[in-house]
Parts: sequence; structure tokens; C-alpha cells
Amino acid sequence: MSNASREKIMIFDTTLRDGAQTRGVAFSVEDKIRIARGLDQLGVDFIEGGWPGSNPKDVAFFHEMKKAPLSRASLTAFSSTRMKNMAVEEDANIRTLCETGVPAVAIFGKSWDLHVTEALETSLDENLAMVSSTISYLRGRFEKIIFDAEHYFDGFKADRGYALAVIEAAASAGADWIALCDTNGGSLPSEILEAQEAAAARVTVPLGIHAHNDSELAVANSLVAVGAGARMVQGTINGLGERCGNANLCSVIPNLELKGNFRCLPEGQLEKLTHISHLVSEAANRSQPDWLPYVGRNAFAHKGGIHVSAVRKNSRCYEHVSPELVGNDRIVTISELSGKSNVLEKVKKLGIDLSDDPKRTAGILKAVKELEARGYHFEGADASFELLSARELGTLKDYFTLQGFRVLTWAEGDGKSWSEATIKAAVPEEVSLSGGYSDPVEHTSADGSGPVEALDRALRKVLEKFYPVLGTVKLSDYKVRILNEEAGTNATTRVMISSTDGVDHWTTVGVSDNILDASWHALCDSLIYKLKKEDESRRHSGGGSIEEDKEVAYAAQN
Amino acid sequence: MSNASREKIMIFDTTLRDGAQTRGVAFSVEDKIRIARGLDQLGVDFIEGGWPGSNPKDVAFFHEMKKAPLSRASLTAFSSTRMKNMAVEEDANIRTLCETGVPAVAIFGKSWDLHVTEALETSLDENLAMVSSTISYLRGRFEKIIFDAEHYFDGFKADRGYALAVIEAAASAGADWIALCDTNGGSLPSEILEAQEAAAARVTVPLGIHAHNDSELAVANSLVAVGAGARMVQGTINGLGERCGNANLCSVIPNLELKGNFRCLPEGQLEKLTHISHLVSEAANRSQPDWLPYVGRNAFAHKGGIHVSAVRKNSRCYEHVSPELVGNDRIVTISELSGKSNVLEKVKKLGIDLSDDPKRTAGILKAVKELEARGYHFEGADASFELLSARELGTLKDYFTLQGFRVLTWAEGDGKSWSEATIKAAVPEEVSLSGGYSDPVEHTSADGSGPVEALDRALRKVLEKFYPVLGTVKLSDYKVRILNEEAGTNATTRVMISSTDGVDHWTTVGVSDNILDASWHALCDSLIYKLKKEDESRRHSGGGSIEEDKEVAYAAQN
Repeated sequence: MSNASREKIMIFDTTLRDGAQTRGVAFSVEDKIRIARGLDQLGVDFIEGGWPGSNPKDVAFFHEMKKAPLSRASLTAFSSTRMKNMAVEEDANIRTLCETGVPAVAIFGKSWDLHVTEALETSLDENLAMVSSTISYLRGRFEKIIFDAEHYFDGFKADRGYALAVIEAAASAGADWIALCDTNGGSLPSEILEAQEAAAARVTVPLGIHAHNDSELAVANSLVAVGAGARMVQGTINGLGERCGNANLCSVIPNLELKGNFRCLPEGQLEKLTHISHLVSEAANRSQPDWLPYVGRNAFAHKGGIHVSAVRKNSRCYEHVSPELVGNDRIVTISELSGKSNVLEKVKKLGIDLSDDPKRTAGILKAVKELEARGYHFEGADASFELLSARELGTLKDYFTLQGFRVLTWAEGDGKSWSEATIKAAVPEEVSLSGGYSDPVEHTSADGSGPVEALDRALRKVLEKFYPVLGTVKLSDYKVRILNEEAGTNATTRVMISSTDGVDHWTTVGVSDNILDASWHALCDSLIYKLKKEDESRRHSGGGSIEEDKEVAYAAQN
Repeated sequence: MSNASREKIMIFDTTLRDGAQTRGVAFSVEDKIRIARGLDQLGVDFIEGGWPGSNPKDVAFFHEMKKAPLSRASLTAFSSTRMKNMAVEEDANIRTLCETGVPAVAIFGKSWDLHVTEALETSLDENLAMVSSTISYLRGRFEKIIFDAEHYFDGFKADRGYALAVIEAAASAGADWIALCDTNGGSLPSEILEAQEAAAARVTVPLGIHAHNDSELAVANSLVAVGAGARMVQGTINGLGERCGNANLCSVIPNLELKGNFRCLPEGQLEKLTHISHLVSEAANRSQPDWLPYVGRNAFAHKGGIHVSAVRKNSRCYEHVSPELVGNDRIVTISELSGKSNVLEKVKKLGIDLSDDPKRTAGILKAVKELEARGYHFEGADASFELLSARELGTLKDYFTLQGFRVLTWAEGDGKSWSEATIKAAVPEEVSLSGGYSDPVEHTSADGSGPVEALDRALRKVLEKFYPVLGTVKLSDYKVRILNEEAGTNATTRVMISSTDGVDHWTTVGVSDNILDASWHALCDSLIYKLKKEDESRRHSGGGSIEEDKEVAYAAQN
């Protein structure tokens, strides 16, 4: 069906306001600007940027945004109805709001009698007057006024007459939209349906839905409300938000576009969804949850050999939608359950076609299975899988050879502890010569607060002399898993290390019955992966090898 | 409403089977047993333990479970219908299944024509015969047979006649339950409703629902199915599962019990829900997601000042249910993270009543908070909490003092590696004298395949000389988690060690930026806990202290 014939649902993003309430998340002003630009490019309709009266950071954000307005979305400021027993023009929050210069405002007001009398401690009539006078005052001062009926669904259950009177007051005063809020996130879909229909019967102003996820029903409740006539969905990227979060727009939007008869984003924009999900996770400084529907790393991951061979025959067998539609990738994981089809699929992603080479495919599969039987786990360690494939295919260069290491850890009775590592390793002769060193062997030591840090530092000290490009590599995560746990401390240890050079991220794995030996293997793979990647990009761009480049770097330094 | 007048919904937990498919999760046999016991205590009806034909670990799990059956739940084995064109009694998987000795089986069969013809590559009739003959064969061999109609909802959309024919075949062959599966997780609630109603109109066998979360609708879809007559919900703790996970029982159960007219668990068991959620996260070696509805750390966390004051006036203002109902806590501000009531509750479990001693209660609370701020985690480490309380109350004896340790790890170029630990420690003079030793200081070394094993061996070598009872202690599990992951190898490390003396099991925790130092603290706590326990049981039975007993043992040896 063409996009034009579908009904439009307005997308109101509140990642920067409600999403910023997530425990442990603190966006800087720069983060907020970056996210706002990303959301604008995605094509949402409203971007709620914050509550200008509540904190200086939000004031600064709106101030910065004045300098370079959004190209498509309406930047929206959030605020409450005026304070009780006060003229609206005297309310400081409302005055600050009017100074933001944004086109749209979202004003929240109470619609649950309990909140009016117990939290606000005022009369039901005064609350209605607060709603009316605030909306009337703002009318003409902003292009769009959205009234957020806070706790509408709980209010409807407690006193439906009053809840409906509140939204009627907002409608009569001139609100352009009324968003019905399930603020506590406790409503069931059947309750949303009834209260949403009652609101639609009462006012002609278009309605929206603002759902929280405290019953793990925020996405379903948003869909139910749309089914009952709501034409705006409020939510956040990745479902960020206070407590259990808000409705996750990364699930609501594809559900409406791919499974419902609605359009939310401009044509062709849905495939930017995975990108925006990662951008917000990064700004929030948290790993993007793997399990996220549509946009998560595991959303289209296939593990078992039976699943993989079925997906190769017809991806519909185990995929509810195609990953490309939302800009995500199919991940075929390599695990002990894998068949040849997993290996073919994976090496294809490395640009190697082995479909006519069953012998080498079987060789890689055999190596994977042998290592996995020893405790390796390539599912999350793509970089180690790439190195394993290159080793099996005979295409991996020899970058260095370990001659030995020693790690010493001391602890004293007073609780102080520290570690020292010593490493002896050799690089190929041509590497040392091209770097201007006659001795290809390096033997050095470094210390650290723990043994793995000491080992990491000593290894870099050895290698950076010959390969200065490794200076850009940083470890971003270090995970340890004990495998045959019943064996206690004498168990196989699997270490997974994530690294980044500021551009790419990769993960490597090492296994040993010695945790330091396992860490060593994962550390080495991480650095070798970087060297291999560097060699390949130089080859593609027609440049020389790393050693030659190193020579230039060395010459420039001296 | 009393529990008895509510309709019962069977809870079918598949954490150990579908949940074990989560990318990055690998349960050991011991983990699986611990989770099964926890689920049994919670009061679920069916515990699906694995697929015995698919891997040796699941075979070992069912074998172990034979020795100590569950007290309430039906342990369930998973398997597929027989292979195509084969007699059911010749199918090796079915034979393995019959050897498990469990009371219940869940058999999955295809109900989507696409899967029959494209994935299974057989005829629609043969698939019906596979369903019938498998169920007929198992009837009488098991107390309960559940038929999982794989891809039922996709099958219903594609060819409803065939999907219904499949479940009819299962019903006629004698299945006790038919669970309709949204295997790809792509169905909308309206689609679930229609297909569930059509199934209910076709068969009289009771129906279940098995939903996946690929559209973030698994919980809602489970509720819709129950509304349409389903009387079994299949799901996992914390929503673990392949891709985006399965329906999260920690949300489904309280939604049905607290908001619907249903009962799922025996009376009074709902408040164990938060505990089981943590237990599964610990076994999976992942942090419990903070955002989880009902059971997550943020589910009842209040951040904004307005929220906090409103919650103090009336908790209903911003809470959809009371946290105690599901065994969770309200978190109001960081400083109130764990209240005194937690501490009182916890030490009461140790047989100490501090309700009239606010000063010492506050002392323990302060110590817990200081340690938790450094990365300690007492939720899963009761033994370390008990030692902390005893230290704060001044009741912990001094068993030994570390003077220092040193751990050395070598690796050679050929891949060989080994470790050696040296420890110097002193016991109180009366302990050494009562053991017949004039020198209370012991200084000795031991080796191991890794540094932690070497440390463990050396520590025992030091202490067993003075406390031979420690010879019965074995480490049963060793888990490591890195806390501030962005710091890479220089991150805080938390080690949790589980130990057993063949009778009891206990867990201890150690934290340090040095993994060996963290291991040292957890190892020491484990052995001190055993010594303390031994002293107490001797005191209770009117016997002497460990040292006295040791003297006897020593005399008997010589």
C-alpha cells in the first residue's frame, strides 16, 4: 500500500524530557542537541526538549537550539498548568516558557481527583480553572498547544466525570491536541480502550496517548489507543524513562507502519531507526540493550543450525519482518549448534565467498567446533572469528611471537595490592628493520592495579614500539565467565574483551584454565585484529602496509 | 477477592529451555538445578528443563533431578514430533525422552504449512501423521502431554484450515494441553485474539499461549490469549529467550493476579517474585535489568521532588501497585536506597533481634552502604552479609590475620602456563598452642593451573594445619563481574564464590580493582563463614570450640 493512502500518526518524542528522567542517565546539553538533530532527521513530528522552568540545563538547551532551528520537527517545551490561586501571567514557569521561542508547548495538568486534592491540595474547580486559564493564555503565543492529561486513565477509573471535565476544559480553552497519559503505567489494554473511547466521544480535538511501561504494556497500550482513534503517540527512543520507562517508539513505529495501516515517518525513513537507537544509547552512555525488538543486536540473531538453514531457505521462517526495513542486520551466530550454513553466511560478510569451496568451509567449521568444545564462544566475538578464519585460510600475517610472560601480584596485610607484568616477544625482522630497530626482540615490564591491567600495559609497551597505530586502541569492556563451574577455582575461564579505536568496536575471546592466560589470548587477538584491519584499509586505499606507514610516523616523530 | 474464587492459570516456565537460548547466556547443570528449585518454591506448575536429545548438558540435568525430585511442579522435558518417514519408536530423540523419568513432556510440531514444506521438506499429511503418532505413542508413558503448536499464529494467517487441522490431530491423539505459539513474535493482539478464539471453537482440550517479544507485545499477547480462554501461559523469568525474548512471567503473573481475576501461584507466593528474578539473573551472570516492571530495581524508584513528596502523602499517586506485593522495595532517594527495615529483616533471619537497638542497626546499615558504594553486593551473598553483621556487632572471632600474599603466573612461548601463590598468615596464639604448635605464623606456598587456584590451595594449606574442619569445604562456583565496564581492564572487579561442606551451601563476595585481591576476600569469607558456623553448632550442641575439638582431632591423628 502506498504511504499516501495510510492514515498519519503524529510521533511525539520525549526522549529528552521523560527519557532524561531514567535513573542513571544524564544528558549533557551537547548530547541533547545531537539527539534532537538525529530525531529531526528521522522525521518525528514533535521533539519535547525539556522543562525550561525546572533546571538551567534545559534553559541552555532551548537557548542553543534558537541558533540553528530544526528543519522539520516542532521543538516543544514542557511545563505545568499555572500554580494554584495565581494569575497565569504572574507564574514564573509560564514566563520562562514564553521566552524559549519554540513553536510548540506541552502543558500537563491533573485529571485525577486524588492528585488534585492530595498532591496539589486544591479544589477540583480551581484545577479546572488552572487548565483553562493556562491554555487560553498560551493560545496565540505558540503554534501548537498539546495538553497532557496527567493520570487521565487512573482519573477515569476513580471519577470519570471529573477526568472528562478536565479534558473538556482544555479543549474549550483551545488546545490543539490532548494527550491522555497513563502516568503510573498501570492500565490494562481493556482499560485504555474504554477510557480513550469515552474521551473521543466527549471532545472533537484530536487525541494522543502517553503510556508508561510499569506493566510491560506500554507498546500494546499505545496501539490500542491508536485503534480507538488516537492520532498522536508520545514515547521515547529505546523506551527510556522513569521507573520502567515510556512507550518505546522503536517498537511502536514499526508496529504501526509494518503491521498496521498507518504512516508515522516520511517515506523511506524507517530504515534509520536502528541508527537512532544506537545514537541515543551512546549519548546515554549505556550499552544498547541486545534484546530490543527491531533495533537490538539480537533482534534478528539466529543461533541453532536448524534455524539458520531454514532462514537461508526462506527468511520468513524465523523472522517476523526483514531486518533491512528498520536498518538492522541479520546476525548468524557461530556456536556449537552451528552448521556449515552459519560459516558460509559469516565469512560472506567478511567478503569471502566459500560456497564453491566445501573443503575450506569444513576446515573453518572444524576449527570452530574444536575451540568451542574447549570453551571458546564466537557468538559475541566476531573479531576472533575473523582471525580464526584468516588463520585457517592462511591469509593472516605474522605480527609478533610471544616468548614468554610473567605476572606477579602482591598483597600486604594492610590490604594494599598491586601487580607487575613482564613480557618478552619478537616481531618479524622486516618489521623491526623498517622501524629502524636492529633487534626484533622486546623484553619489558609494566605495572597495574591488577594483573590484567599490568599485562595489557606491558603488551602495548612491547608492540607500540613497532606498531604505533595501536596507540588508538582502547579496551571498552572486559568480561569473565567460568565454564565448568562445579570445578570451583580450577575451572576453565573464558575472557571476552571489547575494544575500540574510536571508530569501530570489536570483541575478542580467550580461553584457558588460567585466567591470565585467557586474558592474554583475548588481548592479543584484539591488537592483531586492529593491525589486520589497518593493513586491509591501506591496501584498499592503495597505500602501503602498516610497517611502511610506521616508518613515516617514526620519521615524523624524530 | 479470595484466591479460591479466582480462575486458575497454569504457569509453564521455560527459563531453562527457551530462556537458555538467550544469546550470551549459558547455564551450568548446577545453575539449572538451583533455578528449578527456586521455581518449584515459587509455585509454578510446569518447569521445562531442556531438550534431552539435543545436548549432553540437558541429559545430565534430568539425570541429576531424578535423585531429588521437585516438591510441587511437574518437571517437563521438551522434544519435537518424530522425524519424517520413520516409526516413532525408532526415533532416537523420543527414546532419550522416555528415559528422562519426568512426569511431563512438551512436544512441538509444525502448524504453518510454509514450515512443513520449506523447512521440514515433507508433505502436509506426513506432518499431521508425525503429530498424531508421536502424541499417541507418548500417551500413557507420561502423566501430562503438552503439544506446542509451533508458529500457530503465522500458520493461521497463511492457511487457517491447516493450522486448525494440526491442533485437532494433537487433541485427538490425546494431548492434555495445546499451547499455541507465536514463535516469530510478530503477531498483534488482535491477531492473537482471532486465532485463539478459532482454536477454542475447534478443540475442547485446554489451550495455552507461548508468546515471543519481537514486537514488544509478548506480555500483552499473553493477556489477550487468557482473555480469549487460554488457561496456561508459557514464559520465562525476566523475559529471557532467543532474539527479543519470551513473555516475561515476572510481568504476566502480577498482571493476572493483581489486575485480573485470576490466580497463578499458591496464596502468598507472589511476594517471592523479585527474589526469583534476581536468582535467575545471578545464575545467568548478568545484571538484572533495572527497568524490569514489578521486579526491577527502578520499578518503584522515585526521582523527582514532586513525585517523592506526592508518594509520601499517598503512594498510589505514582505507584500502580504496592512494591511489597511482589517482594520489591520502594526506592525514594539514593540515601534511602536500603532502609533500616531491610537490615532488621535480614539480621532477624540470622536469629538476632535488633528492633530495640537502633544504633547498632544504623551501624550495620552504614557498613552495607559503604561497601555497596564500592561495588559489594550482598543480595546474593548471605554469608558475607552475616560476617559483616557479626563484625559490626563485635561477635566475630578473630580466626587468622593475613601478613601478605604473592601470586606469580608464568607463560611460555609454547602456550604452557602455571601459577604459584605464597601466603604468610598468623592465627591467634591460643589457637596455635591448642593445636600443639608454638609458632602461630604459617608461611607456605602452593601451585595451581591458574592464580586463583594457587591462592585457594595456599590459603587452605595455611589454615588446615590449625583448623582441620576446613578440609570438608569445597568451592562449587566462582563468578566474576566487572563493574564500571567503560574502564576496560582497570575496572572494579566483583568476585562471588559459592562453597559447600557437603551439607550447606553459602556464597561470599569480594571486591577490588585487583581480581586476585577480590578473589582473596571472597575466599577468606568463605572459610571464616565455615569456622563461625562450626563454632555455633558446637556451642548449640553443648560441645567445645573448634580449637578444643581440633586438639582432639590432632591427638587422634598422632
